[in-house]
Amino acid sequence: MLGNFIYSNPTKLYFGDHARHHLEEALAHVGHKVLLTYGGGSIKRNGVYDDVMAALAATGKEVVELPGVMPNPTVEKLLEGAHLARTADVDFILAVGGGSTVDYAKAVSVAAWYDGDPWQRFWVNQEEPLAAERVIPLGAVLTMAGTGSEMNGGSVITDTASSMKIGKVFGERMMPRFAVLNPRYTFSVPKRQMVAGIFDIMSHIMEQYFSGDDDCTSDYLAEGLMRSVIASSRVAVNDPENYEARSNIMWSATWALNTLICQGKKEDWMVHMIGHAISAHTDATHGMTLAAVSPAYYRHVCRYGLKRFARFARVVWDIPAQGRTDEQLAHAGIDALAAWIKEIGAATSIASLGVTPAMIEDVASSVIIFDSGYHKLSHQEVVDILQASL
Amino acid sequence: MLGNFIYSNPTKLYFGDHARHHLEEALAHVGHKVLLTYGGGSIKRNGVYDDVMAALAATGKEVVELPGVMPNPTVEKLLEGAHLARTADVDFILAVGGGSTVDYAKAVSVAAWYDGDPWQRFWVNQEEPLAAERVIPLGAVLTMAGTGSEMNGGSVITDTASSMKIGKVFGERMMPRFAVLNPRYTFSVPKRQMVAGIFDIMSHIMEQYFSGDDDCTSDYLAEGLMRSVIASSRVAVNDPENYEARSNIMWSATWALNTLICQGKKEDWMVHMIGHAISAHTDATHGMTLAAVSPAYYRHVCRYGLKRFARFARVVWDIPAQGRTDEQLAHAGIDALAAWIKEIGAATSIASLGVTPAMIEDVASSVIIFDSGYHKLSHQEVVDILQASL
Repeated sequence: MLGNFIYSNPTKLYFGDHARHHLEEALAHVGHKVLLTYGGGSIKRNGVYDDVMAALAATGKEVVELPGVMPNPTVEKLLEGAHLARTADVDFILAVGGGSTVDYAKAVSVAAWYDGDPWQRFWVNQEEPLAAERVIPLGAVLTMAGTGSEMNGGSVITDTASSMKIGKVFGERMMPRFAVLNPRYTFSVPKRQMVAGIFDIMSHIMEQYFSGDDDCTSDYLAEGLMRSVIASSRVAVNDPENYEARSNIMWSATWALNTLICQGKKEDWMVHMIGHAISAHTDATHGMTLAAVSPAYYRHVCRYGLKRFARFARVVWDIPAQGRTDEQLAHAGIDALAAWIKEIGAATSIASLGVTPAMIEDVASSVIIFDSGYHKLSHQEVVDILQASL
Repeated sequence: MLGNFIYSNPTKLYFGDHARHHLEEALAHVGHKVLLTYGGGSIKRNGVYDDVMAALAATGKEVVELPGVMPNPTVEKLLEGAHLARTADVDFILAVGGGSTVDYAKAVSVAAWYDGDPWQRFWVNQEEPLAAERVIPLGAVLTMAGTGSEMNGGSVITDTASSMKIGKVFGERMMPRFAVLNPRYTFSVPKRQMVAGIFDIMSHIMEQYFSGDDDCTSDYLAEGLMRSVIASSRVAVNDPENYEARSNIMWSATWALNTLICQGKKEDWMVHMIGHAISAHTDATHGMTLAAVSPAYYRHVCRYGLKRFARFARVVWDIPAQGRTDEQLAHAGIDALAAWIKEIGAATSIASLGVTPAMIEDVASSVIIFDSGYHKLSHQEVVDILQASL
């Protein structure tokens, strides 16, 4: 049931393959000195960097570059960026890249003018910056679809010292002022990364969908998004430059995690928690960790929410209800999910991501356990799910 | 296919039955002198007026009242409101009521400081106020779910002299700054009005859904919203004070017409155009006019978009595809729609709304014909559809 909430999402989205022409318009409304942050340099090979630098030059910005954001941004990298943003006294942060880069930009934004340990305060202790504290406004030019970071306040950071990967969801103030969503910018993403992004989207939707047994509009919207992602993924894996499919995937990613489909929902997020622990220990690609553990996780918890899993099978996977019990339907739906994971080339085992049987206890110990979906896992259940995902 | 577009929706939504507590918070950010506009006084009987006046008093506002907004707001009423808003020099307009009242507030907002004929300029000529022109910011406290006016720029006005009812979709600037969406405020709406609102929602979704044969995320979201509206309507007509159902209906109404599911879509709107012509001649309730003509309209045009209508039958109405041609499926879907119209108590004929056979030529002549859905209607086809809807 929809409870009491405030919905406000100020991010302005410039969508489409003309989107780069809008970047100048968007930049006209932000400050003079821009911290430009990006990853390993792929944007220099595919032309995105040139587009962005042209728009920054046309709007007369002073640019400070902060490259080298890694797929799982670390506390060390955060401290480096925060120091640079502060000493350069930038007015705005422009993230160019995938979700990790946008997450990183938010982290730098809140950390730059904070004198203490940002990791402890914002991630470990899950605090929000105070209203009077200075944060740096940011925008995004997205080059990969998946995390939804372009229209939300989420920021995931990894502490390699403690093998902890933690997500913090900041409020409206930390959402990007704008995001440029050009599906063509995602064409040069390696196929494996595209597939990881697709599963990340699917997982975001499922982790908001699998809770409760009430009637809630959010679940119907979630079903629509899942059907769209599945349909487009099947086109995109065979034809990665199919603009229609890539544009649907990009748009679905944004709406999968921008505070729309979570309204009225408890949210599960245990697949993300297990996935984060795997990435913290192996540096495995985020979306692949989710794919590798989802079938085992859902086979384990579906008994606690059979009706919703049966509905998932019927509505999302078009499995006829006739002649099947809810339990049979539920498992048929998860089987369809597992078959789709294989079909699109996502990870089907955590062993393929570098997790060995000997590591399972350690990985399980890094998992933050929430009591938010159909069932609260014990440590032993996490171990069992990891073992079933090998 | 998703094309090039800018998505930006600045309306802040305060949802839930604690929403009235947020009104003070929302009002704190707006100007001192508030034009309070509402309808026939039902808000004085159900307590909403008292809630609103208390919030206005608590925030120290000076209030100018503008009651008497009718279900199909007229040009005369618009001119009265514009004159009052200008002479009182109000800083903000607060609409308390259903979609008509919110539409009216937008119309007053753009007309107040314009010296010419607002009806000709904004509705007949479909112009937008210039950036430099003064418009008055507005907010809404919604008491009826249906039009979606609380989170969009739409404003429908009726000129009784010419029997023309025209909608104008203004841009982001005319969207409400905030909307208070309290499902309990809709409980006292007479059942017939509730049902009219429900069909209005369904029609908004269908009129964005029935176009194109491409693969577009917007259509999957539309299907989810339709499924939710249908499920909740069945609960609400038997139990109008079912909070869960009324909250889903209210939320679906907002998302049915707030620029989300139109992205990448041609939009049809011929059912609305025919419905507007009926209302202009009879003053019939908006949603009922849509219900009365929809089955005949869709039976007529479905031959031009069979695949989408077949998908509508399968996904929205769960009609098995097996053993049916696309044409049979399409008609089965429209039959299901017609049966649902009857089931929830929406209008099944335009005769029941006051249209006589003798009026049909005149009504048809008032219909603005768009070429935007699957098929552009001729005048004779409009006449045929009206006759089939008698």
